[in-house]
Amino acid sequence: MPRYKLTLEYDGSPFKGWQRQADQPSVQQALEEAIARFSGETVTTQAAGRTDTGVHALGQVVHFNLEREWDPFRIREALNYHLRPDPIAVLESEAVDGSFEARFSATARHYEYRILNRRAPAALEKNRVWHVATPLDADAMHVAAQLILGRHDFSTFRAAECQANSPIRTLDHSAVHRELDHVVVTARARSFLHHQVRSMVGSLKLVGEGKWTPADFLAALDAADRSRCGPLAPPDGLYLTKVVY
Amino acid sequence: MPRYKLTLEYDGSPFKGWQRQADQPSVQQALEEAIARFSGETVTTQAAGRTDTGVHALGQVVHFNLEREWDPFRIREALNYHLRPDPIAVLESEAVDGSFEARFSATARHYEYRILNRRAPAALEKNRVWHVATPLDADAMHVAAQLILGRHDFSTFRAAECQANSPIRTLDHSAVHRELDHVVVTARARSFLHHQVRSMVGSLKLVGEGKWTPADFLAALDAADRSRCGPLAPPDGLYLTKVVY
Repeated sequence: MPRYKLTLEYDGSPFKGWQRQADQPSVQQALEEAIARFSGETVTTQAAGRTDTGVHALGQVVHFNLEREWDPFRIREALNYHLRPDPIAVLESEAVDGSFEARFSATARHYEYRILNRRAPAALEKNRVWHVATPLDADAMHVAAQLILGRHDFSTFRAAECQANSPIRTLDHSAVHRELDHVVVTARARSFLHHQVRSMVGSLKLVGEGKWTPADFLAALDAADRSRCGPLAPPDGLYLTKVVY
Repeated sequence: MPRYKLTLEYDGSPFKGWQRQADQPSVQQALEEAIARFSGETVTTQAAGRTDTGVHALGQVVHFNLEREWDPFRIREALNYHLRPDPIAVLESEAVDGSFEARFSATARHYEYRILNRRAPAALEKNRVWHVATPLDADAMHVAAQLILGRHDFSTFRAAECQANSPIRTLDHSAVHRELDHVVVTARARSFLHHQVRSMVGSLKLVGEGKWTPADFLAALDAADRSRCGPLAPPDGLYLTKVVY
C-alpha cells in the first residue's frame, strides 16, 4: 500500500489541536477530509507532533496510506485546493517506504516559542505570540536555557496528563535570543513531554523578569516536581518548526 | 487645546480601511470610539495614510485634540485597553505642538509589500501576504524598481478614483529583495497616489514572471496611461511601515 509523507504549515488558532475530536475542529480532521475529497479514500493520518489547541506548525510531518498510487506533486496540489479555506498548507509531499512512521521514525523535533516583549499588545501577531509587557532579560533567559541541556528527569516541566512512560528526555538544544521586540526561545530534542516547551518557557519568563535566577531555574528542574514549574506559557507563541528523520 | 500623536500597528483584514464608513467597521471608528471611552470626548482623528480595505500598518501615525490634558503614557495604556479585542495596538503616544498634522506634516512615507512566492498557499500568513505560486525573479524586479526612482508622472500607477491634484510624485526609494520564500518590495516617497504601491507591485510581478522586461515596466510608467498598468496587487500584502516628520 503506497505511503505518503506530508510537511504541513498551519495556524493553530482555529483548531482544538492536531488530534481529531468528537465535536471540535482539529487539523487532523480537516486534513483527512481533504484527503477523502481528492482520493475518495478514508484514511487515518499520523503526525510527528500532536500539537495542542492553538499551537502552530511551520513543519509538521504526517504520514498516511492510500490504496491507489498518486503522483506526490498532485497530492500536494489537490490537498491545498481542498483544504481551503482552512489555514493549513501542504508544503511538501513525497512517497515514502512503508516502514516510515511520522511519529516513531523522527530523530529530532524543533520548536520555537515567540514572545512579543513590549508595552503594546499584539495586533498583526494576535494569536501568534505571547504578549509579555514587562521587559525581559533575554541574556539571563539564555544562561538558564543552557543549564538544562542534556539528559534529565523533566517531571517539573511535564503536564499532569502526560502519557509518556518516562519523564526522562534529552534536550539537544535550548537557547533564547532577542529580535527587536521579540524574545525567541528555541528547543530541539528527539521527543518532548506533554507541555514541556510551554512549561520551560513559562519558567524562563520568570528568569527574564528577574523573579528567578538561572540557578533557581536549574533547581526547579532538579527537584523533578511539577509544583516547582512556573505558570504554563500560552499556546499562541509555540511553533513546531521542523521534524528530522 | 492639547494635541496628541499616536503610532499605530493594525491588522487591516477585518476593516474597510482606515477611513470611517457609514455602516462598515473602520480603523478610524474603532480608534475614535476607544478615545471616547477613556476621555469622554468625541474627537475626529487624522491619519498620515488613509489605508484601503485589508491594508495593514506597522507604523501608521494619527493626531487628534483633547480638551483635557493627559499623560501620553496613560493615553497609550488606556487606548490599548479599550481597543480590545480589535487588532489595533498603540505603539507610541506623545504630546505634540498644535501645528503638527499627521497627514500634512509628513516628509516621508515607507511602505512594504510582501509576496509569498511558493507553490503552497499561505497558512500562518493568510491575509498578510500576496500568494504568487509561479517563481518570481526578484533580481529582475529590483532592476525594474530602480528604473522608476525620482520625479515622474505616475498616472500609469494611479487609481481612477485618485483625488490628488497632480499625478507627479517623487519616488525616493524603491527596491525588491528575496527573503527565502518571500519577495519583498519596499518604497518610500513624501506621498503616494491612490493605489500607487499596489499598482507598481502588480506590474513588478509581471517583470518577476518574465512577462515584462524591466524596460517594459519603465515604458509603462513613461506612457502615463492607466491602461498600461499590470493587474492591481491585492491589499493583503501591503504594510504602511513608517511615517517620517
